[in-house]
Amino acid sequence: MPSLSVFMDVPAAQKVDGSLLKTYQQDEDTNKVFLAYRVCMTNESDPWVSGVVHKIRQQIAQDPSLNYEYLPSKGMKSFIQASLELLFGKHSQAIMENRVGGVHTVGDSGAFQLGAQFLRIWSRGAQVACIISSQKEPHGLIFKDLDYEVYEYSIWDPDQLCLDPILFLNVVEHLPQGSVLVIGNIIDCKLTQVQWAKLMYTIKSRQIFPFFDFPCQGLNTGDLEEEAIILQYFVSQGLEFFCSQSLSQNFGIYDEGVGLLVVVTLNNQHLLCVLSQLMNCIQVLWLSPPAMGARIITSVLCNPALLGEWKQSLKDAVEGMILIKEKVKEKLRLLGTPGSWNHITEQTGTHGYLGLNNQQVDYLIKQKHIYIPSNSRINFTCINTHNIDYITESINEAVLLAKDSQSGFPKSTHSYLE
Amino acid sequence: MPSLSVFMDVPAAQKVDGSLLKTYQQDEDTNKVFLAYRVCMTNESDPWVSGVVHKIRQQIAQDPSLNYEYLPSKGMKSFIQASLELLFGKHSQAIMENRVGGVHTVGDSGAFQLGAQFLRIWSRGAQVACIISSQKEPHGLIFKDLDYEVYEYSIWDPDQLCLDPILFLNVVEHLPQGSVLVIGNIIDCKLTQVQWAKLMYTIKSRQIFPFFDFPCQGLNTGDLEEEAIILQYFVSQGLEFFCSQSLSQNFGIYDEGVGLLVVVTLNNQHLLCVLSQLMNCIQVLWLSPPAMGARIITSVLCNPALLGEWKQSLKDAVEGMILIKEKVKEKLRLLGTPGSWNHITEQTGTHGYLGLNNQQVDYLIKQKHIYIPSNSRINFTCINTHNIDYITESINEAVLLAKDSQSGFPKSTHSYLE
Repeated sequence: MPSLSVFMDVPAAQKVDGSLLKTYQQDEDTNKVFLAYRVCMTNESDPWVSGVVHKIRQQIAQDPSLNYEYLPSKGMKSFIQASLELLFGKHSQAIMENRVGGVHTVGDSGAFQLGAQFLRIWSRGAQVACIISSQKEPHGLIFKDLDYEVYEYSIWDPDQLCLDPILFLNVVEHLPQGSVLVIGNIIDCKLTQVQWAKLMYTIKSRQIFPFFDFPCQGLNTGDLEEEAIILQYFVSQGLEFFCSQSLSQNFGIYDEGVGLLVVVTLNNQHLLCVLSQLMNCIQVLWLSPPAMGARIITSVLCNPALLGEWKQSLKDAVEGMILIKEKVKEKLRLLGTPGSWNHITEQTGTHGYLGLNNQQVDYLIKQKHIYIPSNSRINFTCINTHNIDYITESINEAVLLAKDSQSGFPKSTHSYLE
Repeated sequence: MPSLSVFMDVPAAQKVDGSLLKTYQQDEDTNKVFLAYRVCMTNESDPWVSGVVHKIRQQIAQDPSLNYEYLPSKGMKSFIQASLELLFGKHSQAIMENRVGGVHTVGDSGAFQLGAQFLRIWSRGAQVACIISSQKEPHGLIFKDLDYEVYEYSIWDPDQLCLDPILFLNVVEHLPQGSVLVIGNIIDCKLTQVQWAKLMYTIKSRQIFPFFDFPCQGLNTGDLEEEAIILQYFVSQGLEFFCSQSLSQNFGIYDEGVGLLVVVTLNNQHLLCVLSQLMNCIQVLWLSPPAMGARIITSVLCNPALLGEWKQSLKDAVEGMILIKEKVKEKLRLLGTPGSWNHITEQTGTHGYLGLNNQQVDYLIKQKHIYIPSNSRINFTCINTHNIDYITESINEAVLLAKDSQSGFPKSTHSYLE
């Protein structure tokens, strides 16, 4: 008699995502294009790698003095120090006051997993995690898994074709007392000074706990300091928060998934307590983090010449992004596509909203084999000299067709993400 | 008015472990020795690294064809395939029947974290996780964290000075129906054929789920196949199980903490369901695993010449261990230390019990600055030509002193770990 499997009740899991990519891969059309890769791409459709990284990999491989022992659970000390200085500045007062610290985390979601576990244990009564971003983030799953009620908002306004600061403020004002507020990439959301003050007041008075997602410092504007201003502002306002600082994308070492959970507290005593509790979570999660990524990054950040090379590579990458966006806009203008398309160049970074509606997106996928997410937020670095004409002409067709069959202009991307 | 910290209720965590190492590090005595490092050490007190690894690191760094994109959540396919073949053999029937699979995990505890999460969700009614090993393992924390009741047993018999198969069987027979049984390093536990049959019967009839810990294949006896026989036996008996296969120690790439959660099921359909559910857990845990360690290992395992070099390096390392143990035994014999000390050479691998009691251990730490765990299980590769005389003379002193002040011989290591 054959035995029964202990797994007989385990069903196949529903796919979390990746279906757009799968459909693209199965498409046999020679013109097919995928515009939703996560990372910065080169003109040759390869993932971007900072030039300095190749050199460092070789140096590391040839260095006989390196020790390959397990890292401590907290991670590589020099890596943590250098990464914190990158975020807050070498002369940050909070660093000097020893109230900023971090632990070396694993993968792209490790910092959220670790931080959310900590908050689940130590943040009394936090039942809600609200994720505000310019796109749907994977972190929602982590909080859901830990029994948080999760609200996810994209603050893209499909009418004004920009990120909407009023929507941002509105969402925060209506959060329950003590909620966790995950703040994703909102660098293009322009708050006025009055709005900033209002945000600070709401966060403080409602005891909302900010948890920043900081996945690619420098790859939005090319200016590392400018992109970190929001964090420094929160520090200067005396706020305590967590930040998931990922350093895979801005070095182009995606397959090493390396980052930090950054902790900012009011004083050193609280910092030490929080870090010690995080150590206990790490003992259970991964015991000690992998070293390769951290080693590459530390080698660059701690050497002024290499640091300069890396910064220049970021600037070059961002210039490339700006150029491709300008070309897309220019081509759409030359084609006479209705609309201003200024929103394309007004958005920073690899990703941005095209501002198309569902029908137009559908047309691009089904008729033109151009795969873009339903909210029309694409990775502009997937557009290159080889495919730009096909893509812009197709967008033009999609807009004209939809214009004929519908009144009005792109409006259908929703600000509340299902 | 200064604000109150949101962390005001967070106390400093109690240290999980590491206090022996800390005491050692703070000791200023010039003779101090630490005999409890986790990994295989060289005669120069460096962590052992397989010679082939240095070469591969350089090859990888210089390879222009490599792509550094994020790995899929499941991990590197070629790495998984090669690692499974290492465990079960290239011509394993279970692999050919597609009922053995694995996912690439992170850190030394990642496979346990992942597997335990899966079991918590899908194994109805499993309330108990029992860990049987020759030492205290860190995995207990993982199961405790997931609300398992955790029993931990070392099966070392301090009277017979060997691992005790009867104790092993006894423990398993008294486990509640459906318990998870973590089987650590028990390679030195010699079960008779009758005992094996009894074990299989108990596991099957009590629906006990085996979860192997396989941290350093090849570093016990130098024979990769021989060390995996127990797994192949379980497969041949039609058992389903998990196995945490770690490959950091047997390559000497400790700081990349790389391994697999291996899944064995009765058929391919169940395997696919289990793997798909594991993918969901990974999305939340680390999203995608780091590549460096897997790349090194795959390069070695998939190249017959490099594979041969690696196997030879394992044999050399094991020969070194055997030699040092023989020398320790010989020196104790020459010193006339009471006892046979055969148990030193009868235990395989880096670690083994000295068979000392608490008083003797205490003497070695406090009087001789030789740091060993209270159960006297030391890492023999921490003993080298520079410190062997001091260590053996000290052991001799400890045994003679304790003999004078106590009747009887070392007996005080407990088989139930607190």
